[in-house]
Amino acid sequence: MSDLAPVLDHLDRSIDQSLERLFSLLRIKSISTDPAFSSDCREAAEWLVEDLKSIGFEASVRDTAGHPMVVAHHEGEGPHVLFYGHYDVQPVDPLDLWNDDPFSPSVKEIEPGRKAIIGRGAADDKGQLMTFVEACRAYKAVHGKMPCRISILFEGEEESGSPSLKPFLEANAAELTADFALVCDTGMWDRETPAVCVGLRGLVGEEITIHAADRDLHSGEFGGAAANPITILARALAAIHDENGRVSIPGFYDGVEETPENILKSWAGLGETAESFLNPIGLAKPFGEQDRSVLELVWARPTAEVNGITGGYTGAGFKTVIAAKASAKVSFRLVHKQDPDKIRAAFRAFIEARIPADCSVEFHKHGGGPAFQLDYNMPLVVKAQGVLTEEWSKPAVAVAMGGSIPIVGDFRRMLGMESLLVGFGLSDDRIHSPNEKYDLTSFHRGQRSWARILDVLSK
Amino acid sequence: MSDLAPVLDHLDRSIDQSLERLFSLLRIKSISTDPAFSSDCREAAEWLVEDLKSIGFEASVRDTAGHPMVVAHHEGEGPHVLFYGHYDVQPVDPLDLWNDDPFSPSVKEIEPGRKAIIGRGAADDKGQLMTFVEACRAYKAVHGKMPCRISILFEGEEESGSPSLKPFLEANAAELTADFALVCDTGMWDRETPAVCVGLRGLVGEEITIHAADRDLHSGEFGGAAANPITILARALAAIHDENGRVSIPGFYDGVEETPENILKSWAGLGETAESFLNPIGLAKPFGEQDRSVLELVWARPTAEVNGITGGYTGAGFKTVIAAKASAKVSFRLVHKQDPDKIRAAFRAFIEARIPADCSVEFHKHGGGPAFQLDYNMPLVVKAQGVLTEEWSKPAVAVAMGGSIPIVGDFRRMLGMESLLVGFGLSDDRIHSPNEKYDLTSFHRGQRSWARILDVLSK
Repeated sequence: MSDLAPVLDHLDRSIDQSLERLFSLLRIKSISTDPAFSSDCREAAEWLVEDLKSIGFEASVRDTAGHPMVVAHHEGEGPHVLFYGHYDVQPVDPLDLWNDDPFSPSVKEIEPGRKAIIGRGAADDKGQLMTFVEACRAYKAVHGKMPCRISILFEGEEESGSPSLKPFLEANAAELTADFALVCDTGMWDRETPAVCVGLRGLVGEEITIHAADRDLHSGEFGGAAANPITILARALAAIHDENGRVSIPGFYDGVEETPENILKSWAGLGETAESFLNPIGLAKPFGEQDRSVLELVWARPTAEVNGITGGYTGAGFKTVIAAKASAKVSFRLVHKQDPDKIRAAFRAFIEARIPADCSVEFHKHGGGPAFQLDYNMPLVVKAQGVLTEEWSKPAVAVAMGGSIPIVGDFRRMLGMESLLVGFGLSDDRIHSPNEKYDLTSFHRGQRSWARILDVLSK
Repeated sequence: MSDLAPVLDHLDRSIDQSLERLFSLLRIKSISTDPAFSSDCREAAEWLVEDLKSIGFEASVRDTAGHPMVVAHHEGEGPHVLFYGHYDVQPVDPLDLWNDDPFSPSVKEIEPGRKAIIGRGAADDKGQLMTFVEACRAYKAVHGKMPCRISILFEGEEESGSPSLKPFLEANAAELTADFALVCDTGMWDRETPAVCVGLRGLVGEEITIHAADRDLHSGEFGGAAANPITILARALAAIHDENGRVSIPGFYDGVEETPENILKSWAGLGETAESFLNPIGLAKPFGEQDRSVLELVWARPTAEVNGITGGYTGAGFKTVIAAKASAKVSFRLVHKQDPDKIRAAFRAFIEARIPADCSVEFHKHGGGPAFQLDYNMPLVVKAQGVLTEEWSKPAVAVAMGGSIPIVGDFRRMLGMESLLVGFGLSDDRIHSPNEKYDLTSFHRGQRSWARILDVLSK
């Protein structure tokens, strides 16, 4: 009998206990972007340390300038892997669109024969990171040891730009460097088709505030003569894209590569259409660059998006005011070799050129990082695809992802380590939105998948 | 001795008591646009009724579908006048920019030798309406009667579009129709120069909400493919003006007349420049239509202004979300014969044409009315200019105003009554803004001015 089979059996038998543990973690309101939840973030870190210690890891909460890291180590034979996940979650607003309290997790049947774990963080990323922890726990329980040497890094600032991550990696480079990293923050192609992610878009986040008059003005008294910062902002934001959906900021496409024909062809084979991609969210028509497939748009093309805007009177009723200021949060998804610093500088120059001489603009930098691209034929990728294919009903595919996981770039640049990105999220998980969920199958077979990957890596 | 001199003396001697009465009214938080303050609005109406009864008016609170009206009558010889004012005030946000509690009024020396009443509503419109009430009180105290027959109408919804006003005028037309109306909701030209207002811009208010996906989306997962309602909104708002600052909505300028050369010349003689108009609010450059003076822009040209905008994540930190919806409050200031209904319809069509097929837009109508223009040579205007010139140090001027007072149009159309618009506000009163004030001189000499106007009208 292989080492693997009894581990898989153990995972099958302990699914209820593993759910209980995940629920305990989901109940902690670890919203990293809002300072009101700082102590909840620490509580989540402490919970993870205690849980990892119970498995036999040497684990500790490690302070940073922001929310703490969790670092853990377990000895073992063979290769040394560093597993990465994040325990922080997105804010829950608009709260009135949640069917249940976002921090009172439950399992519900979401359609006949399909159960899911409901709650903020169920998929992003608490449910995902616990699939790996549960695989480790089962291996230890069955064999009294790990299949290889395992280190773990859990971050608490992934949803707020990871300001403490680079200083922490730099200060602890020797301790954290392994043969390669395992990252569980991505998704499957569909409910039956597992995926290994070889491309991730980078991110630049900027907050801009335009200042006009030194006070809010009565629009009757001053309207028509005084600068309106909302109008200035609207004009600047409207100018970011041209009539073909391309970003108009000079130099924006420097470093963007055209995706090879054979890769575009393999993506076309997945059968995704604009309708199949957009209809589930109530839309029908691709909004970005023209003449590209939706998969290319979200996996291999850069974007500029306004994530938030506010200015003037936004309460009930009406107020005929010309605001003193207006602001927006804007983010860019980057691909291939686009340089985040250059994009940020080009964006700022683009906006500054659109501010009247008697007004001003303030910029606030939010975190970001370059895109990440792996070789499609890398052995680590190929091995993982093999065992994922054994676990799930359809062959694993190598895909790209639209979201950003800046850490894989940091691992490469700072620790010289490539990352294997395997995850079990689904496109209907509603991550970052009300009623986030994680399929029970994702949680269970995710655990089994990690057991298989650890097994094959140890050989 | 004339009837007037002892009334003016009485007003001089009772300024402290009149201030106490105004403070009592200013302490009432009668913010009409926010339903949370409904009972405060009623309290303000009841306070006014009690005060008017104490002078000898037959006064009552009159219910409407919204906030109540105050109606009062006092017999007298000679012409019958209807005085109009409003007891409701604007919201106070942003509260952190107030130096004091907006509803704890006080008198402060704002520069050497210049005192002002500080608080929300001090100038707009509680301080102004009390100048008339105090003039009545003094006349009655001195002579035991009024100089003419006086009716009063105080509204509680002026700052929220006056939804109940037209139905109320219609239902009570016989009771409210007088020979002419007196309205105190305008300003002086400067601290020494009183003004009679013969032109007022109209108003159309619209709230638009653009809906895209049926939920908030992760910008990494869907960015580049899914419609962003903030971007759609920004593009639509940016398109409202052309590169010369003119409004691009088809038909918008129908009914707009060019101001006669002699009027433009008299305005030019007032010595206002772009710098003198805009520098006090921290600006320098006219923002609207090019090649027109600032006085023409705010007195005689129509505008389109965005008064508020909101969409996506606007809290602390950053959230990489593509919002499900975004909304803006937009208002238009109308002049001359522009038709509010046609402007509203044209705006809606203009926006609808800019909404992608898979998105939608919702419109919410806020109140409004057409512009108002009096003949510059009307006898009522000329008489008032004469006595205002006696009270103040410089001759009274006939001007236009940028703001809207829709009631004067309603008085004309529904009650066949013209309105005399005289007020004592100053351009630095910060109405609708934090730290609203009303000069003590405005309050005191405003009372004396009304006494003079009542006196001349009675002859």
